[in-house]
Amino acid sequence: MNEQELLKPYVIGLDLGGTNSVFGIVDSRGDIKATTAIKTQAYDKVKDYVKASVEALHVIIDQVGGIDKIKAMGIGAPNGNYYKGTIEFAPNLAWGHNGIVPLADMFSKELGIPVALTNDANAAAIGEMTYGVARGMKNFIDITLGTGVGSGIVIDGKVVYGCDGFAGELGHVIMRRDNGRLCGCGRHGCLEAYCSATGVARTAREFLDTTDTPSLLRDLNPKDITSLDVSIAAGKGDKLAKKIYDFTGEMLGEACADFAAFSSPEAFIFFGGLTKAGDLLMDPIKKSYDEHVLPIFKGKAKFLVSGLDGSSAAVLGASAVGWDI
Amino acid sequence: MNEQELLKPYVIGLDLGGTNSVFGIVDSRGDIKATTAIKTQAYDKVKDYVKASVEALHVIIDQVGGIDKIKAMGIGAPNGNYYKGTIEFAPNLAWGHNGIVPLADMFSKELGIPVALTNDANAAAIGEMTYGVARGMKNFIDITLGTGVGSGIVIDGKVVYGCDGFAGELGHVIMRRDNGRLCGCGRHGCLEAYCSATGVARTAREFLDTTDTPSLLRDLNPKDITSLDVSIAAGKGDKLAKKIYDFTGEMLGEACADFAAFSSPEAFIFFGGLTKAGDLLMDPIKKSYDEHVLPIFKGKAKFLVSGLDGSSAAVLGASAVGWDI
Repeated sequence: MNEQELLKPYVIGLDLGGTNSVFGIVDSRGDIKATTAIKTQAYDKVKDYVKASVEALHVIIDQVGGIDKIKAMGIGAPNGNYYKGTIEFAPNLAWGHNGIVPLADMFSKELGIPVALTNDANAAAIGEMTYGVARGMKNFIDITLGTGVGSGIVIDGKVVYGCDGFAGELGHVIMRRDNGRLCGCGRHGCLEAYCSATGVARTAREFLDTTDTPSLLRDLNPKDITSLDVSIAAGKGDKLAKKIYDFTGEMLGEACADFAAFSSPEAFIFFGGLTKAGDLLMDPIKKSYDEHVLPIFKGKAKFLVSGLDGSSAAVLGASAVGWDI
Repeated sequence: MNEQELLKPYVIGLDLGGTNSVFGIVDSRGDIKATTAIKTQAYDKVKDYVKASVEALHVIIDQVGGIDKIKAMGIGAPNGNYYKGTIEFAPNLAWGHNGIVPLADMFSKELGIPVALTNDANAAAIGEMTYGVARGMKNFIDITLGTGVGSGIVIDGKVVYGCDGFAGELGHVIMRRDNGRLCGCGRHGCLEAYCSATGVARTAREFLDTTDTPSLLRDLNPKDITSLDVSIAAGKGDKLAKKIYDFTGEMLGEACADFAAFSSPEAFIFFGGLTKAGDLLMDPIKKSYDEHVLPIFKGKAKFLVSGLDGSSAAVLGASAVGWDI
């Protein structure tokens, strides 16, 4: 621990989601010392949201010895712009869906410490690099398989932000150019429309519709099927569920083969709910990657599942952004 | 000009192609002071190739005042590995197709100056950043439309090399996952199989075969059609030739839309023979990009044609690698 860390040994992490906002105070080893949360959607105005956040934060800040112990704050948020510290047109935030919110500045003024903000997938990549399986790696791609498909791309030890702060939207590369599924972004055929949790549920409905394969999933109302149901069925040896994972993994492997042509990473790291399927998902990803990647890259990249504890990973990732300020 | 440049005002550039090896001595403004060339394919052994190169080089080195005036040498070569200074399994080089050749070290020992080597597409990107339309840009993608499709990706002012030195193979992202054309890399559906000069000639043959559109190209033996023939026909207002450019540009625009999701560059810069078609190619690229790119990136990236003189661009690009040593 260096002198700076002795004086100010903690950072605040905020995992800002559409439903909940989870705060943690974290030390340099990734131990969460105190945590609290508020409901994101309880506030219509960003001013009220920040006020409620700061009130909740002061309780845990006092628990660790006061604001003087805190170096900085990192925020991981949907549509977060690292360059500007803003949240821009975030569809799932009542106070952020139709404008540009200077959230980093607002927290910084209230707390009197530096605040950095990035999108949630980039925060996960930074978290992985700081506390997780990417420690020591300089070139990797972190892929978040959640409600959507997010990505954080690290090249030469730095997250790629591009000219505008929004680089790394790999959930929106096009995987099906003909008759592709409609994606939430308004286009068709995006990776996210197939390989997110909702994409997996769609695949389940499609496979139930277009095949006669017997399946435990046929006992459910197709409209209500979630990726969790697919996971449970697969755990019971359900053949259709396995086919759904094969399909999902195959597409992810093809996508990673294209990503290798871009930045030739030493590892692809997967994070988020779908990774709970373990080898059921990872095996078809690796197999498909090997089949599809340019020969020059074959056998070079590792395929890893996030080393961060699922429940605290997002807060850890957000907090890690704070160390870099 | 700083002190270092006053003492050693020049770098050597080597554009190493399958047929010719062109050498230039270049100053910091991109003026080529002296130039020479040898036939790459006249040598079976790399030792003989380097010996002949150095003999030819000594003549032009003397012309600019001797080796003391030369800061370094940069090489742009197929399958060049920047990290190692090697050429690895380059299919078009008699002395380089079945092994790893430490070419940078060999030249460095003979000349007594530092030598850096990168692949030809990366050299073009560095050339563009040093002397061309990318001066001052930190985030751009240089796409070379020649016999193949090459790319040099620049992020935060640096070429992306990835974990192994081979990143930036955007000619080999997959654009057609079903019934894609066989590519030189052994896979199917690569961008290069459609949007290289040879890809354009293939498109011409396909369109002649599958449509009844009248065309000047029908007067030629289909087997002999080249991208130059398409260009000449298009210049005469040939409708089929225009359709060929529309098809090529549309696919390049779709590909660039995916690339934007990766690194959100401020510009895409096109280089190589096909760009001579000018707006016939660039207009459909821009139109297709606007139609396909994720809304958040719309209208942000410029589409530019290389500002480097075609005949000397490759040497300039290679020489620019030398300034960075």
